Amino acid sequence: MSTSFWHPQAMMSTVKNNEIVIDRGEGSYLWTEDGTKLLDATAALWYANIGHGRPEIATAVAKQMQKLEHYQTFDKYATRPTLELCDRIVDLAPFDDGAKVLLGSGGSDAIETAAKLARRYFTATGRPDKRIIISRQQAYHGLHGHGTSLGWLPANREGYGELDPAVLRASATDWHDVEKTIMNTGPELIAAFFCEPVIGTGGVIFPGAEYLAEVRELCRKHDILFVSDEVITGFGRTGKWFASERFDLQPDMMTFAKGVTSGYLPLGGLVVAPHVAEPFFADEGSLSFRHGVTYSGHAAVCAAALANIDVLERENLVQRVASLETVLADALAPLAELDGVIDVRAGVGLLGAVELRDAQLANKVEAHGLGHGVLLRKIVGGNVIQISPPFIITEDEIQLIADTIAAALGE
Amino acid sequence: MSTSFWHPQAMMSTVKNNEIVIDRGEGSYLWTEDGTKLLDATAALWYANIGHGRPEIATAVAKQMQKLEHYQTFDKYATRPTLELCDRIVDLAPFDDGAKVLLGSGGSDAIETAAKLARRYFTATGRPDKRIIISRQQAYHGLHGHGTSLGWLPANREGYGELDPAVLRASATDWHDVEKTIMNTGPELIAAFFCEPVIGTGGVIFPGAEYLAEVRELCRKHDILFVSDEVITGFGRTGKWFASERFDLQPDMMTFAKGVTSGYLPLGGLVVAPHVAEPFFADEGSLSFRHGVTYSGHAAVCAAALANIDVLERENLVQRVASLETVLADALAPLAELDGVIDVRAGVGLLGAVELRDAQLANKVEAHGLGHGVLLRKIVGGNVIQISPPFIITEDEIQLIADTIAAALGE
Repeated sequence: MSTSFWHPQAMMSTVKNNEIVIDRGEGSYLWTEDGTKLLDATAALWYANIGHGRPEIATAVAKQMQKLEHYQTFDKYATRPTLELCDRIVDLAPFDDGAKVLLGSGGSDAIETAAKLARRYFTATGRPDKRIIISRQQAYHGLHGHGTSLGWLPANREGYGELDPAVLRASATDWHDVEKTIMNTGPELIAAFFCEPVIGTGGVIFPGAEYLAEVRELCRKHDILFVSDEVITGFGRTGKWFASERFDLQPDMMTFAKGVTSGYLPLGGLVVAPHVAEPFFADEGSLSFRHGVTYSGHAAVCAAALANIDVLERENLVQRVASLETVLADALAPLAELDGVIDVRAGVGLLGAVELRDAQLANKVEAHGLGHGVLLRKIVGGNVIQISPPFIITEDEIQLIADTIAAALGE
Repeated sequence: MSTSFWHPQAMMSTVKNNEIVIDRGEGSYLWTEDGTKLLDATAALWYANIGHGRPEIATAVAKQMQKLEHYQTFDKYATRPTLELCDRIVDLAPFDDGAKVLLGSGGSDAIETAAKLARRYFTATGRPDKRIIISRQQAYHGLHGHGTSLGWLPANREGYGELDPAVLRASATDWHDVEKTIMNTGPELIAAFFCEPVIGTGGVIFPGAEYLAEVRELCRKHDILFVSDEVITGFGRTGKWFASERFDLQPDMMTFAKGVTSGYLPLGGLVVAPHVAEPFFADEGSLSFRHGVTYSGHAAVCAAALANIDVLERENLVQRVASLETVLADALAPLAELDGVIDVRAGVGLLGAVELRDAQLANKVEAHGLGHGVLLRKIVGGNVIQISPPFIITEDEIQLIADTIAAALGE
């Protein structure tokens, strides 16, 4: 009999009687209930950056939970871990003094917050016509209401009828197309540009430093809020704490999630630059941003995040990602020569992808991995193999991932 | 210097230098950092149902987290606590065999899931014109993209420009108005009716059993999905496990959050009736609902939920709510005679409200409570005092809440 769980993003007709139950995790490895040991080549959904099952996080969460699991932070209330975490994130993030942090329970939450705040900001500052949000081809920005409209993958937008008509999409790699979209639409109507510095779920696509610099400058020139979506890239994945730092993006807003807790508990949020926050924080001001969720700033969750950042710092894991960047790129590069491989992408931190001829071949690679101790994942149309291991992965384990894919393709 | 935390739902110009930091919780009580002891009259945001700081939840979470904090559940993957929790919820919830459960990280997530699935269902079954969602005056359905459109409180919808045009609102208390809205619009265009059995954030409004029975029947008659939003009422708040059971609503979908973990960790979800799930689960079917979030079915979070349900069952807390229902109503009733009180609402479980003349008076009551050991909360336009204590509250403590409000009004 199948279980009652409706899996996310799944075709349940095939999944319902074929679940794989993950039982245990330790470092970069996972064990299924039937005892199979698997190397986690993707850090689950790009989140298990410090590896699995680390006792220091469990201890920090239990300690906070015994004292106070949470008290809601609406209006004037707060908990100490909430405040500490926000101050710490602002210290780490590439923002000027006075940046503010809104918290939710994941990356999708952060996107809704950013989409609402972008429009609210322009209404609050007397420019309500600036409403359109430009996102990009291949973009993924979560799957809540706004995120579903902002995302690119057509299959993710089908079956709901008309989505948000004030969303446009421009090229992910050609900045001239972004400029054309802005000018054809009219910059006076555009509120924000949402940009993953390295596109994640859409296929691990780095648009290049020139694209990022040019679109950043276009936004500055036309008073369009530049929203850096760092749900995947944040907290070290590109070898800097944030990709916005690496590529000098100076974002007006920056989303984060996943890496902030390494997935130990659900957390996401938005860092807001001082000039965007200012109208809402001004002395004697009467503006409020009427947004938030029950678990905004959850005490036990924030304790997990603080403990996770401690681990990242203590073990120099962000620097480790930087040092492994070429190791991953060098390990994957030879795959480009193999039959069935369309493209191999790597070179920015611990982010890699192998684009295959079709989803059938990707299924074969995934199945081969499962049978040979490497847990891989397919993204986009099912034909791209995601590679985004925990930061603690070794050079040998990176090579094992590449070798396993090569072996699967050679079969 | 103010902190970096941008509080949800807050006017930061006044909050930024006036934060109250909650430090510790035990049972129905909280302590601020300066040592003030406060009775939690609202169970925080209607969630701390088993009370604060209970070690059994911390222990269960730490145990799961040491073994496996989480592995993502997209596609065919799962963890054992995820599966156990879904089966257990289906056992508790008023649905026929074969109901399915989608999981996210809070009530707002559950609403997005329900809004998307309602439309997706009708597209999948050949009726794509059924897109409109009817919600109600006074409704609150979270604040993500869809929820912002579905909610009623005008201030929560202002400043974003046009919201979802396929959302209509009907009366929360007059079922004839719901019928008119359906018939004027055309039932063939309507996908779903979203209904809090007892409206929560909108002011604690019970529409009466007749209203609920009539709107349920209207939805059945016109093939409109009845979505019972039990984010607040679920897991015991009305003296039954679900209000849908108490009022025999037989929902097509039912949201839950808050009470499922008593807020110990962020969790929300959607129970889907078998006939709605069926097209997506049919053998040989090729339909998928391409939706989900990173932390759907998070292992440590599900462990918290299972431990919380254990406590609710072991201590008979749902029955306790039923037995305290008249205690709360009797304690609050005399307040109706006091100057400045517009209405007193109670009588369904541990849900109560005192509607006051204006927000200034409510501020005074809140401040008096803070000075006298009772932590209250204002809702709607700021003139309604929310009363929704933990299920473990005593009769004396309920009386203390009422007495404190009376004393504040008498000053």
